[in-house]
Amino acid sequence: MTFPAPLTGVVPPVCTPLTPDGEVDRPSLDRLVDHLVDAGVAALFVLGSSSEAAFLRDGQRREVVEAVTARVGGGLPVLAGAIDMTTPRVLDHVAAVTAAGADAVVVTAPFYTRTHPAEIARHFRLVAGASPVPVVAYDIPSAVHTALDPALVLELAADGVLAGLKDSSGDLAGFRRVVTGARERADVTGFTVLTGSELLVDSALALGADGAVPGLANVDPHGYVRLDRLFRSGDLAGARAEQERLCALFGLVGAGDPARMGGGSSALGAFKAALHLRGVIDCPATAAPQIPLAPGEVEQVDQHLKRAGLL
Amino acid sequence: MTFPAPLTGVVPPVCTPLTPDGEVDRPSLDRLVDHLVDAGVAALFVLGSSSEAAFLRDGQRREVVEAVTARVGGGLPVLAGAIDMTTPRVLDHVAAVTAAGADAVVVTAPFYTRTHPAEIARHFRLVAGASPVPVVAYDIPSAVHTALDPALVLELAADGVLAGLKDSSGDLAGFRRVVTGARERADVTGFTVLTGSELLVDSALALGADGAVPGLANVDPHGYVRLDRLFRSGDLAGARAEQERLCALFGLVGAGDPARMGGGSSALGAFKAALHLRGVIDCPATAAPQIPLAPGEVEQVDQHLKRAGLL
Amino acid sequence: MTFPAPLTGVVPPVCTPLTPDGEVDRPSLDRLVDHLVDAGVAALFVLGSSSEAAFLRDGQRREVVEAVTARVGGGLPVLAGAIDMTTPRVLDHVAAVTAAGADAVVVTAPFYTRTHPAEIARHFRLVAGASPVPVVAYDIPSAVHTALDPALVLELAADGVLAGLKDSSGDLAGFRRVVTGARERADVTGFTVLTGSELLVDSALALGADGAVPGLANVDPHGYVRLDRLFRSGDLAGARAEQERLCALFGLVGAGDPARMGGGSSALGAFKAALHLRGVIDCPATAAPQIPLAPGEVEQVDQHLKRAGLL
Amino acid sequence: MTFPAPLTGVVPPVCTPLTPDGEVDRPSLDRLVDHLVDAGVAALFVLGSSSEAAFLRDGQRREVVEAVTARVGGGLPVLAGAIDMTTPRVLDHVAAVTAAGADAVVVTAPFYTRTHPAEIARHFRLVAGASPVPVVAYDIPSAVHTALDPALVLELAADGVLAGLKDSSGDLAGFRRVVTGARERADVTGFTVLTGSELLVDSALALGADGAVPGLANVDPHGYVRLDRLFRSGDLAGARAEQERLCALFGLVGAGDPARMGGGSSALGAFKAALHLRGVIDCPATAAPQIPLAPGEVEQVDQHLKRAGLL
Repeated sequence: MTFPAPLTGVVPPVCTPLTPDGEVDRPSLDRLVDHLVDAGVAALFVLGSSSEAAFLRDGQRREVVEAVTARVGGGLPVLAGAIDMTTPRVLDHVAAVTAAGADAVVVTAPFYTRTHPAEIARHFRLVAGASPVPVVAYDIPSAVHTALDPALVLELAADGVLAGLKDSSGDLAGFRRVVTGARERADVTGFTVLTGSELLVDSALALGADGAVPGLANVDPHGYVRLDRLFRSGDLAGARAEQERLCALFGLVGAGDPARMGGGSSALGAFKAALHLRGVIDCPATAAPQIPLAPGEVEQVDQHLKRAGLL
Repeated sequence: MTFPAPLTGVVPPVCTPLTPDGEVDRPSLDRLVDHLVDAGVAALFVLGSSSEAAFLRDGQRREVVEAVTARVGGGLPVLAGAIDMTTPRVLDHVAAVTAAGADAVVVTAPFYTRTHPAEIARHFRLVAGASPVPVVAYDIPSAVHTALDPALVLELAADGVLAGLKDSSGDLAGFRRVVTGARERADVTGFTVLTGSELLVDSALALGADGAVPGLANVDPHGYVRLDRLFRSGDLAGARAEQERLCALFGLVGAGDPARMGGGSSALGAFKAALHLRGVIDCPATAAPQIPLAPGEVEQVDQHLKRAGLL
Repeated sequence: MTFPAPLTGVVPPVCTPLTPDGEVDRPSLDRLVDHLVDAGVAALFVLGSSSEAAFLRDGQRREVVEAVTARVGGGLPVLAGAIDMTTPRVLDHVAAVTAAGADAVVVTAPFYTRTHPAEIARHFRLVAGASPVPVVAYDIPSAVHTALDPALVLELAADGVLAGLKDSSGDLAGFRRVVTGARERADVTGFTVLTGSELLVDSALALGADGAVPGLANVDPHGYVRLDRLFRSGDLAGARAEQERLCALFGLVGAGDPARMGGGSSALGAFKAALHLRGVIDCPATAAPQIPLAPGEVEQVDQHLKRAGLL
Repeated sequence: MTFPAPLTGVVPPVCTPLTPDGEVDRPSLDRLVDHLVDAGVAALFVLGSSSEAAFLRDGQRREVVEAVTARVGGGLPVLAGAIDMTTPRVLDHVAAVTAAGADAVVVTAPFYTRTHPAEIARHFRLVAGASPVPVVAYDIPSAVHTALDPALVLELAADGVLAGLKDSSGDLAGFRRVVTGARERADVTGFTVLTGSELLVDSALALGADGAVPGLANVDPHGYVRLDRLFRSGDLAGARAEQERLCALFGLVGAGDPARMGGGSSALGAFKAALHLRGVIDCPATAAPQIPLAPGEVEQVDQHLKRAGLL
């Protein structure tokens, strides 16, 4: 389907359920998609960081896009990450995910290599030049170790290179520069600005963001949809209260012992444990080399869900 | 052929010549391999950072390994990088490069994801468990944003997980811990320790390294082979003088204007310009989104070569 | 005067006007204080980063506190930075600024040395144990290269070690954890949470912050006071519009050419140029080794002021 | 006394013995100075990182310089750190330590503030312009979070601004650029290049360094003097063996539990524990907010000393 200009609302970055032996668990993925769609989300984003895109083999990536586009059947836009180190490799992923049905691609700055702003600009221009669908920039300095400059994002927006921004920078002031610039500049139209923060969706909407891509929306999509609707209806106090409830729930990402595993293992393990405890997916496994949560850590996730009224 | 235990001498990380439209230039690659082998190098390392592995499509990676292993015909060991973000994706590359003939694989810590030491250890153990050939760890924090702890490297060496280390950390003190530990520990045998520094090969050999993997050896393999032989013959002053000549030559990596391009574009562009000027490869193109050197910058490379007596 | 619990409203981090030969310009400082107080600010913060505390000699630091406390004459609380590397040196500054009349001290985590969270906690406990006035933590990772963990801040708040937080981390999500925690925890009372961001004051207030410490409030204190009052009166749209006007004005910090000077030289130079252009201070000089703005750069500041209606 | 051009040999960065209540322990400091001088060191460096300069009050800093210059009585050059954030504050320290008898000052790049290379250059030029004694640059990016560019160091050397470099960057390749440049450039004469690495003194000497400033030389000055003499006598194998013995001894810096304290607390605590165990100083206390070693950790230091034949 056509990518909206702009896309507004909640766009969950869909987790990728795996079987115990590391393959994509198609029935669980179908149930997860239904769980999200039924809650009223605006679109789905597959093959992002919360989807463990960095851990999925190429065949698995294709399988995920095919499964999700098939399941939603054109009812919602499906954005797909094309996450790889440099332009030639990203272009292969763009070809693969669009062949599999993606309505837009989400692309980071290059990584692994040392990158100059001029190279980042060239990268997005080359990718957009070859992509059959709109390109959304994915600003995620924690992964790629370089941040997208707001001025560059706006320049690429004005030139029609970028259709939107998915911001996981943690820098709300920089995000605001893009939001305000996209609204004020006459040469930028229909540009979508989405926050990737679970914890500041109300703040981002209040300063003019179009929507949010919160990993935690896998666990509680109804909460984020409610927050979005409260905000849009003008009930800012209600939106803030919902956001604070979700902030408390977000504490589950700290379930894993930091002496034993990284923050990614803990957060993705907790999301999947929560989906498993809620009965959405069959197996909470994460991909190697992530460290699995121990039983006591899963119990903490369980407590978080109970406190949030989700179990 | 069997991977030596240890591998000693000069092991160039082989550049990947490209055609103007970005495909692997097979005749140029053959000539480059001959240029290196004729100079007396000990082995070849393909699909590393100097090979632009991060920029090569999967099919191109396979093509490079097939071409190089065919060209050397078993005369030398060929090590191949299996550079990707996480274990499942690295395992696919391991399968591909070993099917194409690689005698060893070179593997970094995970990247893009946030990584804990326990996950790094698990990563190497899983890769080694599935690899049909020896695994060499590639310590390159500038690319993966995490450094390999010497104690972990030695533990994995003792357990037979790692056959060697290719050190591009820039931290010679940490490198020394591995070199000394590998020599002193009874449970570590035949472990190969290679420095990736162009500028400290004499220092690394003097503290006990087995060899070097200098990107600049593409440009002047004879110089590095001479340095290696001078050192091994006990002529330390001669080795140092040769190293200092190579340090001066290394200045060519700064040919590209840092206001216009990143350090990688400049260094790889300069290596390839030098190979082109020396008549080894047909085209100095680097892969997108790297910025090409301007004519005046190529002229600087030319001057460096002339001062070094290479033109 | 007694430090309020909590302190609410706009708390400008007062610039330190200097003479052309680098001494504290007392008449200009008096006029700047009047300029801020007349605009309706809630308190003054001296010897912070915007005050060039890192550049002031000890005698100059004392002179600044004496001048400002004398000028306000108890009409407003005066917070003073006690910025130095470690506990013993900070304690000397605490003694000096409180002898000079400060009503509270503002203290960062240790810097220059490598710091562990346990050492940060010990630092604040020792400082608070010896300080005759309340201690406000100053979270400024861009300067000290370590961030304050929200859980630690709340623990120190609950133990009565800290009276407040001045957050210049740029991490609004972490800031929110402190704001929410301070409100919800029964063992934390009267704790002051202030944002140091010029660009997100409306967002910070909306999620529950007590006030703001914006460097730009030197230039336009009326704007920030208006923003604060609009927010507190419930006019959120008005507050946002005022914030966006101030965001545009904040563009003046980029007046200095980044090829020629650092971001600090540019921002502090622009603040002082603006105060000079507005007739508040006699000389726009910044302390060595900062690079002064060139005339064309000052002209950019002038344009920003004119566009904002401040000239 | 006159600062040699160049200064060669071992220059220990002298620890500052403290009493249990945190004051400078003058008798212990005298004994430590004797311990170092008697071992044959070439000069003494006080108020560096190993001296806990970041933790000493101004009066204590002055006391240290006075004590050490008095004790050596002109027999050796005494270099003194003038460690502070920016030019005006550093100039005050330069005045203080030279009044107290220092023969040269050691100065870092600015810190706490965001620093541009042009500001670093201006800083050193202003400091040297006002210093009555030679200025040695102290490259310590782990503390100041900016590295000195070799080209800048050589430019300042050629201009007579800098008399030497104390390199604690950990980047031996960059260090080599300074060493080689200082030797080859006709406009640089008498420039002193010293490595701050405990672990690479033999390597640094082999590539042309003038000497070393190893913190571990507090504990085993005889070892470093022996290493230096072995190298200068041409016994490179002997120098390497001595260096490897010292590398093993250096393991004592890891005595402190990293879960409980920072690397600085551990290393400085271990140096002082070793000096206490060896009977050189009366009390192993380090300054606040450093965490003291636990008895079991001191026992590890003791074991290291015994294995090294120092107890």
